[in-house]
Amino acid sequence: GWFARPTTVNHGHVSKSFLHDFLDEMQAENIKHHLRKFTRLPHLAGTQQNLDLAEQIRAEWMEFGLDSVELVPYDVLLSYPNQTNPNYISIVDHLGNEIFNTSLAEPVPEGYEDVTDIVPPYSAFSAKGQPEGELVYVNYGRTEDFFKLQRELGINCSGKILIARYGKIFRGNKVKNAMLAGAKGIVLFSDPADYCANGVEPYPDGWNLPGGGAQRGNVLNLNGAGDPLTPGYPAKEYTYRSGLEDAVGLPKIPVHPIGYHDAVHLLQHMGGPLPPDNWKGALNVSYRIGPGFMDGLNQNKVRMNIHTNNQVTRIYNVIGWIRGAVEPGWRPRRTLIFASWDAEEFGLLGSTEWAEYSGLLFRYCVCVCVCVCVCVCAGMYTLRVDCTPSLHTLVYDITKKVRFYLSIYLSIYMNGEEGMTLYQSWHKRDNSTERDAPWISKLGSGSDFEAYFIRLGIASGRARYTKNRKTERYSSYPVYHSVYETYEIVERFYDPSFRRLEAVARVRGGLIYSLADSLVLPLDCVEYAMSLTKYANSIYQLALKHPAAMQQHSVSFDSLFSAVENFTVAAGDFHQRLDQLDTSNALDVRMVNDQLMYLERAFIDPLGLPGRPFYRHIIFAPSSHNKYAGESFPGIYDALFDIENAVDQQKAWDEVKRQISIAAFTVNAAAETLKPFVN
Amino acid sequence: GWFARPTTVNHGHVSKSFLHDFLDEMQAENIKHHLRKFTRLPHLAGTQQNLDLAEQIRAEWMEFGLDSVELVPYDVLLSYPNQTNPNYISIVDHLGNEIFNTSLAEPVPEGYEDVTDIVPPYSAFSAKGQPEGELVYVNYGRTEDFFKLQRELGINCSGKILIARYGKIFRGNKVKNAMLAGAKGIVLFSDPADYCANGVEPYPDGWNLPGGGAQRGNVLNLNGAGDPLTPGYPAKEYTYRSGLEDAVGLPKIPVHPIGYHDAVHLLQHMGGPLPPDNWKGALNVSYRIGPGFMDGLNQNKVRMNIHTNNQVTRIYNVIGWIRGAVEPGWRPRRTLIFASWDAEEFGLLGSTEWAEYSGLLFRYCVCVCVCVCVCVCAGMYTLRVDCTPSLHTLVYDITKKVRFYLSIYLSIYMNGEEGMTLYQSWHKRDNSTERDAPWISKLGSGSDFEAYFIRLGIASGRARYTKNRKTERYSSYPVYHSVYETYEIVERFYDPSFRRLEAVARVRGGLIYSLADSLVLPLDCVEYAMSLTKYANSIYQLALKHPAAMQQHSVSFDSLFSAVENFTVAAGDFHQRLDQLDTSNALDVRMVNDQLMYLERAFIDPLGLPGRPFYRHIIFAPSSHNKYAGESFPGIYDALFDIENAVDQQKAWDEVKRQISIAAFTVNAAAETLKPFVN
Repeated sequence: GWFARPTTVNHGHVSKSFLHDFLDEMQAENIKHHLRKFTRLPHLAGTQQNLDLAEQIRAEWMEFGLDSVELVPYDVLLSYPNQTNPNYISIVDHLGNEIFNTSLAEPVPEGYEDVTDIVPPYSAFSAKGQPEGELVYVNYGRTEDFFKLQRELGINCSGKILIARYGKIFRGNKVKNAMLAGAKGIVLFSDPADYCANGVEPYPDGWNLPGGGAQRGNVLNLNGAGDPLTPGYPAKEYTYRSGLEDAVGLPKIPVHPIGYHDAVHLLQHMGGPLPPDNWKGALNVSYRIGPGFMDGLNQNKVRMNIHTNNQVTRIYNVIGWIRGAVEPGWRPRRTLIFASWDAEEFGLLGSTEWAEYSGLLFRYCVCVCVCVCVCVCAGMYTLRVDCTPSLHTLVYDITKKVRFYLSIYLSIYMNGEEGMTLYQSWHKRDNSTERDAPWISKLGSGSDFEAYFIRLGIASGRARYTKNRKTERYSSYPVYHSVYETYEIVERFYDPSFRRLEAVARVRGGLIYSLADSLVLPLDCVEYAMSLTKYANSIYQLALKHPAAMQQHSVSFDSLFSAVENFTVAAGDFHQRLDQLDTSNALDVRMVNDQLMYLERAFIDPLGLPGRPFYRHIIFAPSSHNKYAGESFPGIYDALFDIENAVDQQKAWDEVKRQISIAAFTVNAAAETLKPFVN
Repeated sequence: GWFARPTTVNHGHVSKSFLHDFLDEMQAENIKHHLRKFTRLPHLAGTQQNLDLAEQIRAEWMEFGLDSVELVPYDVLLSYPNQTNPNYISIVDHLGNEIFNTSLAEPVPEGYEDVTDIVPPYSAFSAKGQPEGELVYVNYGRTEDFFKLQRELGINCSGKILIARYGKIFRGNKVKNAMLAGAKGIVLFSDPADYCANGVEPYPDGWNLPGGGAQRGNVLNLNGAGDPLTPGYPAKEYTYRSGLEDAVGLPKIPVHPIGYHDAVHLLQHMGGPLPPDNWKGALNVSYRIGPGFMDGLNQNKVRMNIHTNNQVTRIYNVIGWIRGAVEPGWRPRRTLIFASWDAEEFGLLGSTEWAEYSGLLFRYCVCVCVCVCVCVCAGMYTLRVDCTPSLHTLVYDITKKVRFYLSIYLSIYMNGEEGMTLYQSWHKRDNSTERDAPWISKLGSGSDFEAYFIRLGIASGRARYTKNRKTERYSSYPVYHSVYETYEIVERFYDPSFRRLEAVARVRGGLIYSLADSLVLPLDCVEYAMSLTKYANSIYQLALKHPAAMQQHSVSFDSLFSAVENFTVAAGDFHQRLDQLDTSNALDVRMVNDQLMYLERAFIDPLGLPGRPFYRHIIFAPSSHNKYAGESFPGIYDALFDIENAVDQQKAWDEVKRQISIAAFTVNAAAETLKPFVN
């Protein structure tokens, strides 16, 4: 309807041959040119440089032939270091003297010496303050790390300053855990064990993180709210803003990131017992987990000096349109919207505000493919795709069509892959453990699809190049969010030929092309059914770890399995009917496309997940313990989490039963939407 | 799409001539026959008799030619009197003797002496208990009545038993107010001032309420939740049910309804000061508002004896379908669903549970027309229509097409109305104060459209015959919810010719026919714009009662007026484009129909109104002080309510500003949906 604007009535005729032409349009040389152009200068959200880039994108998109492009402003809460009062961490002796201070900035890489406006490492949205106290090492700061500290080692974190290494989970979760433990502040550092690959030099001689590099990034716990002052509503000029005291997700304690050169100094003076073996990082110091410093006889302390300011600031999304139409000069069948969302690093703010404002338009949105952020190249080993299950088949189909030049250029990876398609190489390098096909991951969060997928229920996916997940330990690529994340690191190490980026661009382009131009939407409900079956089995296995309690509280997963079975039957029947569809009948086609498009919406519960009103997808949500990871059946999962330690067992298991019933209802209701709309 | 199932491609051709044939099909004689049949025996929700009627409806609908009809069960919380332990109210002397007891049942009207299973008057979902205490008269038990009692008269209701007269507001609101005031229980009675018209005899000699009659009805405060144990989810077999202590909306105190014969005894012994003049009812006793009885020297008390049970019980909706299609044998263009929802009187349970289960299907629902409940004939004066603004024009058009036989039969109302259309008679009898057209009311609640309109945002309307609202004082028609609400009262007094019922049936039928069969949906966005303007002015006037506070807290309605102006322009442009629509293009027609259908949805805020998560319509909600009445811009209204007495003025006015910004955003977003989907 709205998206499809035919000017002729010949809907049945779609020329497939355009797909290959379209894929061939994406060329490594162009990608290299654009990457160079957009990475030349720092362009923090809310700054003039970033607005300049937004204007540039608008101009280029118009030049490329989009029908219209506009800048859409929002006034959101951002966070910047105080320019005259820098942030740092000190070791303070018993007289109050700062006997060691961490660096105020990273050593600037060659070629960037004259660049001004490089923002020093900071934790965006950190609370201000100068807390002083004993230092406690908390490993990665995960939920399980705090359990171990508190329950097994008897270490109390209350009133202490914590130091955690980066990695494994989203940094905001570490900060939340620190607050729950009663800490006064938390220092985050990058350990070589997590941010240096074996046999690789630090940048600029290799792609490892130098010791002076530190990881920036926000430390919010937004749970999908977008701008912390206007949860649920777009941050327009006229929008009511809550006070900072009622803002969503701001940490209440100071937070600061440091590199491993600085971290050594803090860690080597720590007192307390030695850490468990698997908590030891790679620094050549004796990590300790207890509280306090024992520098000779002096009782030193750690002091955080944090002066970061929160500030309502204007950001700009760039939004471009290609009108869909079936007409002589080629256009896609469906309208395409291109979005360059601002302020992703500050909590997905641009994308979420736009989703809040335009939510109604997304009634007609088939799919969101998110591209940017952890760039396209967070590794050099193989393709990684995270997407909703209904996109699996399309992803496989497209990767089989992408011609793959990579092996010609990178002999290090030439293992008989010459002439392979991207699918074949991907399949060889990262086969799924569950079936004979390349591994595809669940969508977590940490990127701009979040509001569209988890809040609005629009099919979503992302694709990038990545490391070998089976052998490489670091959480993200080493220089992530440091000053060393430059154009040159891509050109020299990650993708000298730019063929990986080209391959990823073609995957994304092919997905978009197919979704926009196929007569019948290329979404696969049977794949969704298979995933639901897998997730139901998995959450059931988790519950079975408590057989006695399951029996005592009469907890049954029968209704969920029955719902998944209903969904599986409905999905199979739906695709059988698709085979018999009269594709010459425009409204019949529209009918099945509506069902395909709205399937993902069917998993949205308007009431949201417990305590997370903006996470409303019953099948997928970011893990409550790590925003980056996707959890399936998150309501049941969270109800089961650490249930053996719940004080009120009856209440805890009642909540499990309630969540099972919500999941069963939602899956049943989704199955209903796939049935023919006639009894 | 889904609703439209064409089997030919000739969408442009719609025969208008069927409408008149269709209207003529509805005949007074048939209506009379059906009313007689369905009112012969009591059929309380959850009983065998009610299931028998559901089966009968299924059989008749199939016989009438519907494509399919099914019974859809839910297991919801209902409430029944204890059959062996009746409910009543006593006056108790200082020795504890019950010196007066209210009646256990109403005198049964003639012709019904042999009917068993007549449930005695009770307040469904009343708490159990036998509280004893002094009696305080609280007039209608409205918010303003309690303000007067507590703030002006200095009467403390805490620990007292209250007695309130029925009328003005929904009884559940009276009970909620009583609980907020700390009362131990509340007695509800029907005063002749509110339930007897002048010059009319009590039933069976006239249509007034006899002194032994009492008004049944639930006393829940569900705020749209449906089944109290499964808020937000359908009450299927597998659904998790909360305990009664966590149930939504159940009163915590005993409640009981009595007639005015019994009420006299309670009222005449009451102590305390005389009531304000406008609190006096029509009973020939000295109402008093103070606490306590002063029966001679004895300090008597009142005791409530309430043994009503809550009980999870199976109910059955009857759901029938006519498939839509454009094909030779006539069918409507769009699918019609007929619903006979169960358990309306217990809190709109059948309709709400079905909405919860089928919410996804309603993605494609154009309009809900609700019919039943306060029957079609709650008066004999003129037509009353409550509907969403986009239906105004269609309602006027249809009533102009209804041929009106009424004046021929009822000479009492023959005031030169012979030969008039229903529109002309209605216009003459109830002209709007705002323009020269019949008066149409906002939708409140108290009937089954609630979940569809207020929660899901589907255009809705209802029509019935009613009293002269300008001259007749009683809230509902007098015998409402008493044993005297019989077939015979309609046949003898309300509509002997059954021509009023016929007229109402034709209005409803015409609405449904037009919505189901018009090529372009007959919804009017310009009418919605006019209503928004009116509501914005009205809420602004309300705020202007606090000029100093408005200035001090910088409260501005500019953003709301600007949004309404945007909506008005968008609505005008939309209808201009409609005039140029190429109706031979199926997808172009579908595009504008999508916009028309989804306009009402655009006013839904997934976050709901403050404290009322299932009331999600930003323009309309049931009043927080009277569920029966519709409030416009309810979020702003509630924020302004009694604001002069708010303890924290800053916080209270901040909430007003927040609600204005939410309303402005919502209206702006709705305006966006009316724009062409191309920039």
